This record gives sequence, C-alpha cells and structure tokens, in this order.
Amino acid sequence: MFVRNAWYIAAWGDEIGDTPLARRICNEPIVLFRDRAGSAAALADRCCHRSAPLSLGTVVEGGIQCGYHGLVIDATGKCVKVPGQRQIPTDATVRSYPLVEKNQFVWIWLGDPALADPASIIDFPYHDDHAAWPHKHTMYPIKGNYMLMVDNLMDLTHLGYLHGRTIGGNPSQHVEAEMKTVRTPTGVKFTRWMRNSLPPPSYVKAAGFAGRIDRLQSFEFVAPSTILQWTGATDAGSGRDPDDFEFKFRLFHGLTPETETSCFYFWSAANGYRQNEPAATEQLYGEIAVAFLEDQAMVEAQQARLGEFGEGGLVDIASDATRMTMRRHVDRMIAAERQLQAAE
Amino acid sequence: MFVRNAWYIAAWGDEIGDTPLARRICNEPIVLFRDRAGSAAALADRCCHRSAPLSLGTVVEGGIQCGYHGLVIDATGKCVKVPGQRQIPTDATVRSYPLVEKNQFVWIWLGDPALADPASIIDFPYHDDHAAWPHKHTMYPIKGNYMLMVDNLMDLTHLGYLHGRTIGGNPSQHVEAEMKTVRTPTGVKFTRWMRNSLPPPSYVKAAGFAGRIDRLQSFEFVAPSTILQWTGATDAGSGRDPDDFEFKFRLFHGLTPETETSCFYFWSAANGYRQNEPAATEQLYGEIAVAFLEDQAMVEAQQARLGEFGEGGLVDIASDATRMTMRRHVDRMIAAERQLQAAE
Amino acid sequence: MFVRNAWYIAAWGDEIGDTPLARRICNEPIVLFRDRAGSAAALADRCCHRSAPLSLGTVVEGGIQCGYHGLVIDATGKCVKVPGQRQIPTDATVRSYPLVEKNQFVWIWLGDPALADPASIIDFPYHDDHAAWPHKHTMYPIKGNYMLMVDNLMDLTHLGYLHGRTIGGNPSQHVEAEMKTVRTPTGVKFTRWMRNSLPPPSYVKAAGFAGRIDRLQSFEFVAPSTILQWTGATDAGSGRDPDDFEFKFRLFHGLTPETETSCFYFWSAANGYRQNEPAATEQLYGEIAVAFLEDQAMVEAQQARLGEFGEGGLVDIASDATRMTMRRHVDRMIAAERQLQAAE
Repeated sequence: MFVRNAWYIAAWGDEIGDTPLARRICNEPIVLFRDRAGSAAALADRCCHRSAPLSLGTVVEGGIQCGYHGLVIDATGKCVKVPGQRQIPTDATVRSYPLVEKNQFVWIWLGDPALADPASIIDFPYHDDHAAWPHKHTMYPIKGNYMLMVDNLMDLTHLGYLHGRTIGGNPSQHVEAEMKTVRTPTGVKFTRWMRNSLPPPSYVKAAGFAGRIDRLQSFEFVAPSTILQWTGATDAGSGRDPDDFEFKFRLFHGLTPETETSCFYFWSAANGYRQNEPAATEQLYGEIAVAFLEDQAMVEAQQARLGEFGEGGLVDIASDATRMTMRRHVDRMIAAERQLQAAE
Repeated sequence: MFVRNAWYIAAWGDEIGDTPLARRICNEPIVLFRDRAGSAAALADRCCHRSAPLSLGTVVEGGIQCGYHGLVIDATGKCVKVPGQRQIPTDATVRSYPLVEKNQFVWIWLGDPALADPASIIDFPYHDDHAAWPHKHTMYPIKGNYMLMVDNLMDLTHLGYLHGRTIGGNPSQHVEAEMKTVRTPTGVKFTRWMRNSLPPPSYVKAAGFAGRIDRLQSFEFVAPSTILQWTGATDAGSGRDPDDFEFKFRLFHGLTPETETSCFYFWSAANGYRQNEPAATEQLYGEIAVAFLEDQAMVEAQQARLGEFGEGGLVDIASDATRMTMRRHVDRMIAAERQLQAAE
Repeated sequence: MFVRNAWYIAAWGDEIGDTPLARRICNEPIVLFRDRAGSAAALADRCCHRSAPLSLGTVVEGGIQCGYHGLVIDATGKCVKVPGQRQIPTDATVRSYPLVEKNQFVWIWLGDPALADPASIIDFPYHDDHAAWPHKHTMYPIKGNYMLMVDNLMDLTHLGYLHGRTIGGNPSQHVEAEMKTVRTPTGVKFTRWMRNSLPPPSYVKAAGFAGRIDRLQSFEFVAPSTILQWTGATDAGSGRDPDDFEFKFRLFHGLTPETETSCFYFWSAANGYRQNEPAATEQLYGEIAVAFLEDQAMVEAQQARLGEFGEGGLVDIASDATRMTMRRHVDRMIAAERQLQAAE
C-alpha cells in the first residue's frame, strides 16, 4: 500500500547515462533513459509487442528501441516505428510516467498524471551549491518496507544502541535529548537539543572542539518519504545562531518503495564546514555510510519478522511519538487517495 | 499447458552414460538410464517405497537400484527385487515412459502410451551422416516457457536487433526479406530469400564469397516444438540449385518443456561445406552458440515480464504472422487432446 | 504438525556463548542466550516494541537488550527497561520458553508450560562421563522433515545401500540381521544381532578383531525424536556380556524440527574402548560424520519428492515394520494433544 499521488525519487540524475536503467518502483517495472538531447524519461519496462523489457534495448533517435524486434517507443510512450510495416497500430503504446529532474534527483509520479504538479517537488538547492555545501551521494537498496526506514529516521533514540560502535555515542544522551516536534502542512518536523554535551570524536575531528558543545539536530519529514536533516554544533553556551555554528552538515534521506518489502534509500551528505577540503566531505560521507549499513541490517531483520508476524501485539513507547505522528500523516494521505478513487 | 501426446527430446543419447540422469520434463521428475545392454529407459524419478529419487541409485543387472533401501525397478517400471523379502508387492511399480533412441536423440512420450507411435518421430538422418554433415550439439537450459523459444525461431526479424553484434547483420535486410510461409500437416514452414545481399563476415570466412550473394533460409516447424533449419548462400545470380550452394548448413532446434517457465533447448549445427575440416564445424557451432546465449537472455527477461503481467494488452505486428500460425497449430493440438480426454 | 508438549533439543550447551543464538524451532523464531551468571534462557526472537530480532541485541545485566532501541527483556520475558521512560507498559512482554540444561544439551519446551516436567527429559549421563565414554558432538542442519531422519534411523537396512562406500558393509548382512523389536512406554526399541559375521574394516582397526564377530546393535527411540544407539561387537561365539564387549560405542541422535521441511540433527559419538586415546574418539566421529552426510543428502532429496507429491501411492515393505511402529507412536501423541486442546 503506497501513496500513489506523490513524487518519489526514481534515481540520482547521474545514474541515468548512455544505457537504460531498469528500476522497480511501487512494484511497477520501469525503464529510465535519457534521449539524445539529454532529457530523462520513464516508461513501463515492457515492450507493447512481446513484453520484452525495454531496458534491454538502446536509446535511438526519437526514443528507445526494443532490443528484441526493434520497435521504437518515444518518451511519451507512443510507438513511433515498427520494423517491416508503415502503419503503426494505434494501440501500440507503453505507459509513460511524469518525470522531473531537479537538484540532482530524477523525480517520478506513479499516480494520476493530471495531478502531477512539479511545483510540489521538494526544494533542496544545497545539492547544486557545491561551494557552500559540497556533497557526496549514493543509493542503498534495502530489503525492507520503505516506512521502516522512515521510522528509523524519525526516532533517533536508536543512535546509542544501533550505532554505539559508529556515530552513536552515549545512549542516555540521545534518549534524554530536549525534543520538540511540530506538525507541518506536508508532514512533521522535530528539533533536538543536546546542550552542554560531550562532542563525539568525529565532531572534534571535523571542527576542533576543545570542550563541551551545544548540539542541535533538525529533522523535517516531508510526506510520504523524504527527510531533510540539519545537524550542527557550537561551543557550549556560545549562543551563536545555528547558521553560524562552527560545525554543521545536511543529510538528505529519500526513500522510494520498490516492493512492499523493499525500497531504495537515496541519501547524500553535505558538509557546511571546511568546504574547500574534499577530504572533509569524504570523511563525513564515509562515517555515515558505515552507520547506514547498520540501519540497513536492522531494518531488514525487522522486515523479516514483521513480514512473518505482522504488527499485532507490539507496544508503543514514549520515543515513538514523532514516528507515530509521521505514520498518521501518511495514513491520512492514503485514506484521502482512496476516497478520491471511490468518488471517481 | 503442454501437448502430452507428442514425442519430446528427453536428452542427447550421449548424455546418458553410466550414471542415471535426472531431468524434469513437462513438470514430471524423470530418471533416464541405460541398462547393462545399453538400452535407454525412462522412469518416474521416485521410488515406490519411500519416494527417494531413483536418479540417486545405480544401474544393476535387471534395472535400476534405489540408493536408499535397495529396491530394484526394471525398465518397464516393475519392482523386481525387495531386499529382505521374497514376495514383491504387486503395487510396487513406478511409472515408465515410452522411449526411442534415434538420430542421436532420446525421444520420450509423456501422454497416453497407447498412442505412442515411433513412426511419428522426426527423421533427421544428418546427425548420423558425419561425412556429409559433420555436426556438433549441446543443450541449453532456458528459464522461459518453451513456446517463447519457438516464437523466437519463427520470427527472424529479431536477428538484426538481438544479434546485431553477432550473427545478425543489417536489420532492414532481415525485415525486408522475401518471405513465403506454408502450412504443413505437422506444422508450418517458411522460406526466406535475401537476394543480392551483402554476405555476413562469417559467410565470407566460411565460403570465400567475393561479392554479393543470394541467401536462402528454410525453417520447418514440426509441432509441438521442433524446428528444422536449412540455411545456404550462393553467388548473387548464380542460379544454382540450393543443394549445390557453395555454403550451406543445417541447424536442429528441439525445445522440451521442463516446467511452465523453463525448458531445455537441444540444438545442433551441421556444416554442409568443408566437411573434412573439424575447424569449420567448430567455427559454425561457436558463432551460433554465442548468438543463442543472446536469445536465452532475452527470452528469460521476456518470461519474467509475461509471468508477472501475462499476454494482455500486447500488440501483434506484421512479422508475427508465421509465429501466430505456429501458435494456432499448437493450440489446436491442445484443444484436440482435451476433447479426447473429455470423451473418455 | 509437531508434537508440542515435548522436550526438544534447542542447542548443544556449548553453542550458547557470549552472543545470543537465533534458532527457529517448530517454526518459531527463538533467541537463546546466557545471562551473566551463565544460565541459559529462551525467548521469542522478536522485541515487543518494533519486532526487531532480539538475537541482534546484547546480553546485559538483568536480561537481553534489544539492539535497536534498547529495551531490556529478562529471562522470563518481562521487559525491565524502556529507555527514556520510567513506567514500563505491562503488556511489554516477550514469550519465554521453559529451558533445561542437562547432559551437555539445552532442552526446550514449546507446548503448554504447565506441562513442562524436567523429570521427563532423557538421561544420557555418558556425555558427562568423559573417562568411560569420551565423546565428540555436532549439529547438522537438514533440509528435510525431522521424521524422515527418524525413519532413516529406525530402518537400518539402508546401511548396505546408502553407506556402501562408508560404514555400510555387505547389504545382505544388514537385511538378514536377526531383528527384535519391542514397544516401550516412551517409544520403541529394537536390537539386531549379526552373528558370526565379517567385521567391517573400521571395527578391525578399532578393536583388532582377528576373525569373525558377533555384532549387536540396540536402538531405542524415545518419542518424539530421540534415538539412543548402542553398538558393540565381540569375537564370534565368545559369549561375553555386551557390557564387556571388546568394541562398543554409543551414538545419540536428537532431531529437532525447524520447519515442516527442515530440522536440526544433534548427534554425538562416544567410544567405550581405547578411552585414553583421543584419536580413537576422533576416528569414530570422523567415520560417522561422513556417513551422516550421505543420510542428509538422501533425506533432502526424499523431502523434495515428498514435498511435491506427498506420501500417496507409496508401498510398505517388511523392513518398514519398526519405523511404522515408531510413526504410530508419534501419531498417537499428536492425536492425544489435539484431544487435549479440543477439551479446553
């Protein structure tokens, strides 16, 4: 069960090169490709002739050519060439999907095309601002429902337990953080202060803190599956404005459903300090990359149990509050979509 | 859904040696073995005692001995020895299958044994004529329904697209070939002329053509799943009889269903030129072996999509005509078989 | 379909060390761990919070701590700590299982805890008597229903066929053994005499027999899935009491269902001869280890066929008699359990 009328990240822009890219999104096999002018397009990954995956074909003038019998389909899904015949059957079409390339992402719309408004796509200009926010990005394929990854990001008390050997630090520090959650029109946002706390070793290494720090995290969930993270720290009691913190970085987390039990985790790490040092970007990315493998392993194990036993009998605790606000937001979107369908 | 009252290739004769061979055919697990006199036999691959696969047993005097508790089953499926007791239960039997060894093949009959007429088995004497038609053969296991491979062979317009980097040549040449299709009592046959065309590099290498050629292909489909191919070429305008063409070869294509979504592709390549040069046979075989791996990859990808979405919404094009005649022939056989069963 | 009100072997005691052990038993995922005092405990392998496997957690003071959000569950299944809150929800519990450690085994009870009587656990003091019965043990994971392994052990006529190249010896010797079967309150027991027979090479090597031997085997099946084996040999006609045989060893066979189509085979080999020579223990173990791999391969192949075709149409033979007595005993236990449940 997925929200359909929403933009999901189909790929990083740089994943789509000369050869077509096959990717299953919300359980639909899709081929992503660039036409010769460089525009990205998305089609159902099945030729309308004999169901061969178009992703095994090649990009030609005017579209993508099936690698089996040579039909050419254009970016709108219309067949524009059938080898050996002049007349092209009018029903020779393949489903095409609205696609928008923005801030290094290729966003796709799986629902009703009439509702696909590019203006509703998240802005993340930092990906394009290599001077102020140099970044590095990747995609992790996860064998778990995408909501389990969103859950993970909306309850940071796991940091001390799951990431104790990497980015976690002291468990009680995370559990006792000063937490403030607000609902937003598009989701929910929380900020966490860990004041007068010991800096993790990576913070010291990155920003040279000599003593205790005031540490601030802000996580904005934009439904159905994006989280915009800002993290920063300053000398304890400095009273600086967060924009002027000695240490700050941004993470982008985008989860795209592949199937009910798997998803793609698109993420990036952008450092707002020592921007002229590529090694700083690499180091931030490297530390997070390892921690996210820990999240992946846990979420996949959790998926296996939930897939077998469901959610029945589970117990909510205090730290689930923000996560549950997030879940309710998505549930409302799905309910609204159903109502819309029923009304049609 | 398979035609049952038909001979299928169970194996190449040389696949059945000293040890039993397990092979699933039309979704039935079967053991193939040779008795001590060298006669091939086929039984259900389950001992009637405790269901152990007989293929884990050994050939002994009088039959095959189960490797678990030692029962011996003869080639007719009758249990002829039960260790530890004199009396053999009358219901201790295993299903046996009619089997005929001919032209290097072992043919099997899965349907009503009363209808198994060896006279209806295809003749392919070229496999035994090593002087005029030296050949090399193999079997490819394919993860696709056997009909998808028959489809592949009955529409050669795919040559220019799927085999562009191997045996294909110019796509439009294949699409515009002069094509003649006739129905036969046992299937359908087509011939294709590509007159005054450029010879593919492999033809030049094999037969030394200096200029353009007249190229002829003949494909005879014998239901449910054999295709007999003859291919030849002569200097353009030579007016030679095809039997006297400077270059000619025969391919045998036999598809045997394993399951609904997999099959065995038995094929051979026999060269009717430079018969005294083993390297010529090897070269022909080698070129085709690579191209057929391309067919395999495409058919397996096609199977994945058809298995998920079915045939609904697909569009037929002109080049499907022969393929569809073939499909209708097989559909009629299945319908006739059902009528026969209903009448019983 | 498993007997539930029974003790099964969950693990060898030495399998449970510093890190939790995940094991599926009777299709329930279970985590086995030792508390800091060394006591073994078994819980459902799902945290009551978000279903993360507890086996990914760590043993802490007072219980096992979930590796995701840090809840601590004690050995009785009660949650004793929820990070970030003082109040622990009363329904924050995980199922715990009765567990008894005895004779190197950790026994578990999956059924009604009120019926779990440690007194009914099999005694096997030989595992603790390293002087008189030095032993070596292991566990084989088997991809077959546990009853197929019990079948295997309750019909030794397979020795000559399946183990002909290892421990088997002459098939007819095994088939014609003098066999005596008696039912017991907890199962069935058989003894087999092979009098005046040729010793297998391994017997000669172990005990130096110069001529023929009288060979005795005793197999006691204790329902639902344990077999206690005693094997010995003496010079033919020596008239010695079995306890004084020149050559004797004990095998313990414990089968624990993992799923309907897989099980754990816990076994040990203890030599009652040359007890001061570790090489004698190693050699006995090594020979049996190889033979049991043959059993594993056969049972897994048998499972594949039975899983596809069921037991229908199979034929019983004379050597199945003891095996069938065993099966009926287990069937009666399952029927009684159902009656008990229906009466509740």
